[in-house]
Amino acid sequence: MTEPAYVAVDWGTSSFRLWLVDRSGQVLAERRSGEGMLAAAKAGFAGVLQSHLAATDAPAHLPVLVCGMAGAKTGWVEAGYVDTPAPLAAILKQAARVPGEARDIRILPGIAQRDAGAPDVMRGEETQLLGALGLEATGAALVCMPGTHSKWVRVTDGTVANFSTFMTGELFSVVSRETILSLAVAGADDAEDVASFKTAVKAAYEAPAFAANLLFGARARQLLFGSTPAAARETLSGTLIGAELAAGLSGSVPKAGITLIASGRLATLYQDAFDALSVTVQPIDADEAVRRGLSMAAAAIWTKQKDF
Amino acid sequence: MTEPAYVAVDWGTSSFRLWLVDRSGQVLAERRSGEGMLAAAKAGFAGVLQSHLAATDAPAHLPVLVCGMAGAKTGWVEAGYVDTPAPLAAILKQAARVPGEARDIRILPGIAQRDAGAPDVMRGEETQLLGALGLEATGAALVCMPGTHSKWVRVTDGTVANFSTFMTGELFSVVSRETILSLAVAGADDAEDVASFKTAVKAAYEAPAFAANLLFGARARQLLFGSTPAAARETLSGTLIGAELAAGLSGSVPKAGITLIASGRLATLYQDAFDALSVTVQPIDADEAVRRGLSMAAAAIWTKQKDF
Repeated sequence: MTEPAYVAVDWGTSSFRLWLVDRSGQVLAERRSGEGMLAAAKAGFAGVLQSHLAATDAPAHLPVLVCGMAGAKTGWVEAGYVDTPAPLAAILKQAARVPGEARDIRILPGIAQRDAGAPDVMRGEETQLLGALGLEATGAALVCMPGTHSKWVRVTDGTVANFSTFMTGELFSVVSRETILSLAVAGADDAEDVASFKTAVKAAYEAPAFAANLLFGARARQLLFGSTPAAARETLSGTLIGAELAAGLSGSVPKAGITLIASGRLATLYQDAFDALSVTVQPIDADEAVRRGLSMAAAAIWTKQKDF
Repeated sequence: MTEPAYVAVDWGTSSFRLWLVDRSGQVLAERRSGEGMLAAAKAGFAGVLQSHLAATDAPAHLPVLVCGMAGAKTGWVEAGYVDTPAPLAAILKQAARVPGEARDIRILPGIAQRDAGAPDVMRGEETQLLGALGLEATGAALVCMPGTHSKWVRVTDGTVANFSTFMTGELFSVVSRETILSLAVAGADDAEDVASFKTAVKAAYEAPAFAANLLFGARARQLLFGSTPAAARETLSGTLIGAELAAGLSGSVPKAGITLIASGRLATLYQDAFDALSVTVQPIDADEAVRRGLSMAAAAIWTKQKDF
């Protein structure tokens, strides 16, 4: 087995992922937990990280590179922002070192859009973009990055020109748990209902102003026509994603088409949504993209000091 | 003091209002509480009603007329629906009597739109419509009824042709309490920020597909430009209402214009929203409308049996 060269951490709002990586970028060990920024802010960031490092037997000298919400003002150490237009290469140069730690721990900055009419921020997605597009990217890209806070990003020649955040994932979560619609989805099994999902995507895409009405329709349909909890859940999901796609696809689509950076269930869901609208996308795995981005950043930061 | 003739109750999802009324429609006593359907389903509907009747010294023989969610499947006694196209006069004829009660207690039905493409239901608003428009209404009306679940209703010659529910109020509640945006509105004082509200209404009205993006903007604006919690709250409210208005105003507006049935803070808020779009509305007080509707129904139901 090869020696670990660094530790890569994707530290989001509600999830923590850590990889022990060798000099060739090979993953030697992985940890996943729900100790995201919100949980770690209470438990202590240093302690959470240390427990996972210990579990992977990471040597004491091993440097750690972090991206995501751990670098927010409400996170561990504020890592600032690169402002748009933001060259992806600039991210590598602005990592914030965590003070008071024997180990070399750095957090990558986010990207800020300081536009009074369309202010926006991202933390973590810039590293995914780096991994997905690389430092040598040329041409124009329109990138859809689904999630709790989905991002639609326009990148030109390796520089983030502008982006928009949609609260799609978080809205789905609170709408299905905390509103009257929780009654509609209660007892939904895991059975997928792709037909209901695609119908909802199309309806919201065609009339996004009616999103708050289409959501309620999931409840009314159940009361009047006895549709299933699974159909209601897929209708909520499809409505919110359909409205997001109406906005994301409202501008021009570059020649290279649309890049979808997503993993697992979200990748399937958005692929189905684009299919419903007959829009072709180039899929890139989000997990791999963020690891690749962290690897590129680790190499750039430590390659001169350390032999990897 | 005149004798009470009946008791009128508006029993919503989260609020309970009761009026002791004389034969001329004069209110002799009023009770308001948070014991809506959700609370009463646990505490027991009969007990909640009895405690308020006792507090107003209502005579034992006095009949009670109820509208709203108490008549839902998850309420006290299911009062069914009048289907669209629904003559408002039909509501008076389908009140459900609560069984096993010595007192004559009846619950008015709701209205159902059994349209597979746009299923919808209302309970309580039909009584407001009755009170606002009367039984002799002629011509076409487009009615906006803001609330937890706002309704936009088209009425032709006293018949509800069709309607759409928007979860605007409930979305505002969960978005401002349960999402990342709770950080943005935390500590907001009661100071109004009508400018931020109107700006948000216009932005969402013009680009409703971006509603989930405009919501996030309230947080980003605070992070990047230090805007106030009150501005964030008004932005959330204005965004959700602006998207609702984009949908509600997307069809034809009848010659008689738009009727806004609302009370208190909601009336001010929606009046400001329509002002932002330079749309004129005829305001009707929702509290008065529901009492008038209940009075009309009480008179129709009991006038032959009782002397009022």
